[in-house]
Amino acid sequence: MEYQLQNFVYPRTMATDRLTRKGQVTRDRIVQAAARLMLEQGVARTTIEDIQVTAGVSPSQLYHYFPGKDALVLAVVDHQAGQVMGIQHEGLDRLDDLEGLGDWRDLMIGLLTKVQCVGGCPLGSLASDLSEADPVARVQLASAFESWEGLLRSGLERMQDRGELAADADPGELAVALLAAVQGGLLLSQIRRDPAPLRTAVNTMIDHLRSLSSTGGVR
Amino acid sequence: MEYQLQNFVYPRTMATDRLTRKGQVTRDRIVQAAARLMLEQGVARTTIEDIQVTAGVSPSQLYHYFPGKDALVLAVVDHQAGQVMGIQHEGLDRLDDLEGLGDWRDLMIGLLTKVQCVGGCPLGSLASDLSEADPVARVQLASAFESWEGLLRSGLERMQDRGELAADADPGELAVALLAAVQGGLLLSQIRRDPAPLRTAVNTMIDHLRSLSSTGGVR
Repeated sequence: MEYQLQNFVYPRTMATDRLTRKGQVTRDRIVQAAARLMLEQGVARTTIEDIQVTAGVSPSQLYHYFPGKDALVLAVVDHQAGQVMGIQHEGLDRLDDLEGLGDWRDLMIGLLTKVQCVGGCPLGSLASDLSEADPVARVQLASAFESWEGLLRSGLERMQDRGELAADADPGELAVALLAAVQGGLLLSQIRRDPAPLRTAVNTMIDHLRSLSSTGGVR
Repeated sequence: MEYQLQNFVYPRTMATDRLTRKGQVTRDRIVQAAARLMLEQGVARTTIEDIQVTAGVSPSQLYHYFPGKDALVLAVVDHQAGQVMGIQHEGLDRLDDLEGLGDWRDLMIGLLTKVQCVGGCPLGSLASDLSEADPVARVQLASAFESWEGLLRSGLERMQDRGELAADADPGELAVALLAAVQGGLLLSQIRRDPAPLRTAVNTMIDHLRSLSSTGGVR
């Protein structure tokens, strides 16, 4: 995924301020290699040696940046949260009507199709993988999902302010349901190797929001 | 989860017909131990030795039933599919109106609360864990999710036949969206250790179905 973070600062798991530019590049290469391997085979199946070889760094270089696998896992969570939130900001920052939600859906479908549904949601997969095994990562993931939910809620609130959503609709509840539709849709798409379930899940939520739109005349 | 399969036969990954009753009990004990460990710590983090110790069997006993971890993983997928489908049959077999969907939701929330949201969906967690790592398990999981989706679709079709759902609603699409809501809701509940996201996701879908109900007067 080539999306860059824009105007988005995610709390770092470790201080990277003091790294030289070259040091930062090496660290990024390690994290990106780790993120890709963990997405493709899971966290537990990814060894420090795999990451070191894939990143093309020596063991001592890797240990210079990461004292152990736990630190690397948190850096991967941080990295994937940044990637996903970058995409979500791109899709949601200017959201103000139902058409905008259609563009957001198409952005996600496009990215999923490009990777042939492999890995599902980079953040959701880590959440499923780490929720029981790594309590620190779980808290970090919960915080990332809270940010994502907040972004959806803000978009829905803007729609409501503009009269695109009924005044008595609950943007907070609808944001949770939209996020669940995305996560569930991505998982079903990953299992079937077909973007259709994600499209159906999000379309159904858009239909629901349309039924709640003040212009839809439903309520 | 103490739910028993009722009137539901799920294809077995290996012939168990020739096992003695005692052999069947031992095999079940191994599969149940493996299923619990894999739910709590993930497939890759669960070793054959963990399973053997937890099940209280000797290594040679375990290898008598399962030639290796791959076979055990498929048996766990099969076992969890049976457990989950047992619960889903219980919740959906007599589904014929929106109130029935509320009971189905409460059944799932009750089970999730009982385990304090640990493990999320036994089937969804395996799907996320194994979709990339184990192509055979992925196909087996896809088939289990197809059965689950079919069960939801049948319920929605019955509601439609009874006039509880508008004639132009699409039970197939709505079944996918409901399943996505359940999976996404369960994942968010697992991350937050709170059943609220699952409740919200399913409630939103029930609200949507209500807006499509012929009695709801929406369409």
